[in-house]
Amino acid sequence: MKLVPLGDRVVIKQLEAKETTKSGIVLPNQAQEKPQEAEVVAVGPGGMVDGKEVKMQVKVGDKIIYSKYAGTDVKLNLDEEYIIVKQSDILAIVE
Amino acid sequence: MKLVPLGDRVVIKQLEAKETTKSGIVLPNQAQEKPQEAEVVAVGPGGMVDGKEVKMQVKVGDKIIYSKYAGTDVKLNLDEEYIIVKQSDILAIVE
Amino acid sequence: MKLVPLGDRVVIKQLEAKETTKSGIVLPNQAQEKPQEAEVVAVGPGGMVDGKEVKMQVKVGDKIIYSKYAGTDVKLNLDEEYIIVKQSDILAIVE
Amino acid sequence: MKLVPLGDRVVIKQLEAKETTKSGIVLPNQAQEKPQEAEVVAVGPGGMVDGKEVKMQVKVGDKIIYSKYAGTDVKLNLDEEYIIVKQSDILAIVE
Amino acid sequence: MKLVPLGDRVVIKQLEAKETTKSGIVLPNQAQEKPQEAEVVAVGPGGMVDGKEVKMQVKVGDKIIYSKYAGTDVKLNLDEEYIIVKQSDILAIVE
Amino acid sequence: MKLVPLGDRVVIKQLEAKETTKSGIVLPNQAQEKPQEAEVVAVGPGGMVDGKEVKMQVKVGDKIIYSKYAGTDVKLNLDEEYIIVKQSDILAIVE
Amino acid sequence: MKLVPLGDRVVIKQLEAKETTKSGIVLPNQAQEKPQEAEVVAVGPGGMVDGKEVKMQVKVGDKIIYSKYAGTDVKLNLDEEYIIVKQSDILAIVE
Repeated sequence: MKLVPLGDRVVIKQLEAKETTKSGIVLPNQAQEKPQEAEVVAVGPGGMVDGKEVKMQVKVGDKIIYSKYAGTDVKLNLDEEYIIVKQSDILAIVE
Repeated sequence: MKLVPLGDRVVIKQLEAKETTKSGIVLPNQAQEKPQEAEVVAVGPGGMVDGKEVKMQVKVGDKIIYSKYAGTDVKLNLDEEYIIVKQSDILAIVE
Repeated sequence: MKLVPLGDRVVIKQLEAKETTKSGIVLPNQAQEKPQEAEVVAVGPGGMVDGKEVKMQVKVGDKIIYSKYAGTDVKLNLDEEYIIVKQSDILAIVE
Repeated sequence: MKLVPLGDRVVIKQLEAKETTKSGIVLPNQAQEKPQEAEVVAVGPGGMVDGKEVKMQVKVGDKIIYSKYAGTDVKLNLDEEYIIVKQSDILAIVE
Repeated sequence: MKLVPLGDRVVIKQLEAKETTKSGIVLPNQAQEKPQEAEVVAVGPGGMVDGKEVKMQVKVGDKIIYSKYAGTDVKLNLDEEYIIVKQSDILAIVE
Repeated sequence: MKLVPLGDRVVIKQLEAKETTKSGIVLPNQAQEKPQEAEVVAVGPGGMVDGKEVKMQVKVGDKIIYSKYAGTDVKLNLDEEYIIVKQSDILAIVE
Repeated sequence: MKLVPLGDRVVIKQLEAKETTKSGIVLPNQAQEKPQEAEVVAVGPGGMVDGKEVKMQVKVGDKIIYSKYAGTDVKLNLDEEYIIVKQSDILAIVE
């Protein structure tokens, strides 16, 4: 059972906030908020979305930073939590 | 008696929330809200909608996840409840 | 004396809510609100509307479901009540 | 002295509400509001309006129904009252 | 010293409200508000404005009626007061 | 050290309000507000801005009137104050 | 570990406000607010963004002034703070 996003949507999975590791990305002054780093799990086909041609620029496995408050939380198979965002809510890829 | 949606609209039927099954999709922390999983019952023809070309990407029988608060509730034949949404309110297909 | 709608507008006449018949469409939990089923009485020519090409998809006699809160109530010949909606406010045809 | 409307604007003159005649159009439950029936007095040239091609569909002498709250009241020659609306605020022609 | 408006802007000069003359245009029930009749003093070149082609339809000397609340008041040479409006705020020419 | 504006932006420098001179432009009834007359200091290249082709119409040295509340104040070299506005916030050139 | 911005986004790093140096840019009357001068750290590819062709005009190393309140704060490797803005939030390059 898996999620196949439509249009310019992307299914992402939030990464655990490793507050004490050197490479963790956390928001300054907002330690209590959810971290915005996530991994791409599934990518929509892009194409014409709301009358505009969208080309997908992320791929499965990318680590990304996404816009806070964006997206819809979804729980699959009772214990798998995902977030569905539009690609335009993805700010940057972390390499 | 059946519903034939116009433009980019899709008639969906909410799936029963099976809270205790392994494959049920429920929203985390929102057990009291209606689940967002539904089955596609009828699909509009797409085409020019609000001046934009829309190609329909879902088909009858698809299990889908749709955006909360989207759509209009309609009751047909007294006991059949449907929701009419725009395709852009459908986030992903569940396979 | 009759109404000839402009652009993408459609004149509809609300159907009586037959709450006890098997085929009546009523809104669940909103028995006190007006039913959203109506019959098409007159259809505008479509064409360029607000800079967008609109093709009319309903015809006189169609039973339709329309978006709540949409449209303008008009009374003709003192006792005939109509509603003027844009075609985009029509959700589905009931067949 | 007369008004020559620009673009897609139309000068209309409100018809007297004949509440007791058989052919008067009044808004149901809103007897105290102004009736929405009016006669077209002058029609703008149409053409490019706000970047969109507009073709005028009403002509001088047409009886029309217009959208409540639309338009600007203007008084000419002290005692002639007109309303200037955009054509898109005209819902239907009454024939 | 004079004002040269940019784009689709028009410099207008309000006409004195001649409340008692036969040809004065005043707003009904709003005698205390400023009259909306003005004379065109300078006209912008039109052309591409906000991505849309605008053709100027008024000329210097035209008596016009403009939309209330539109425009910016400007005082030139201490005692000359003008208003700068966009052409789309001009409703009609008075002939 | 100087400012090079991007896109359709213009760097302007407010002119001193010469309230008592014959040629000063001040806002009527708003003597306490900042005057809207300024001199153009730098002009962006124009071109595609937000998907629309913009051609710059002001040049360095132009005296202009700009829309109140528009623009961002910037201080350069501690004592030079500038305002960065979009060209569409410039109402007219004063000649 | 580095940030690769998508679309028309730009990663910037705020410059220290040198309030007492001659070349520091600070906002007048807002000494307590963060200075708006920053250095470009990474630039997105541009291209089609929200249906519009965007050509990137800043490059890594540019000193820029950006619109207050714009952008998202991100912390990388625990102690490196960046801001991700859209290029349209960049007002000017400081040369």
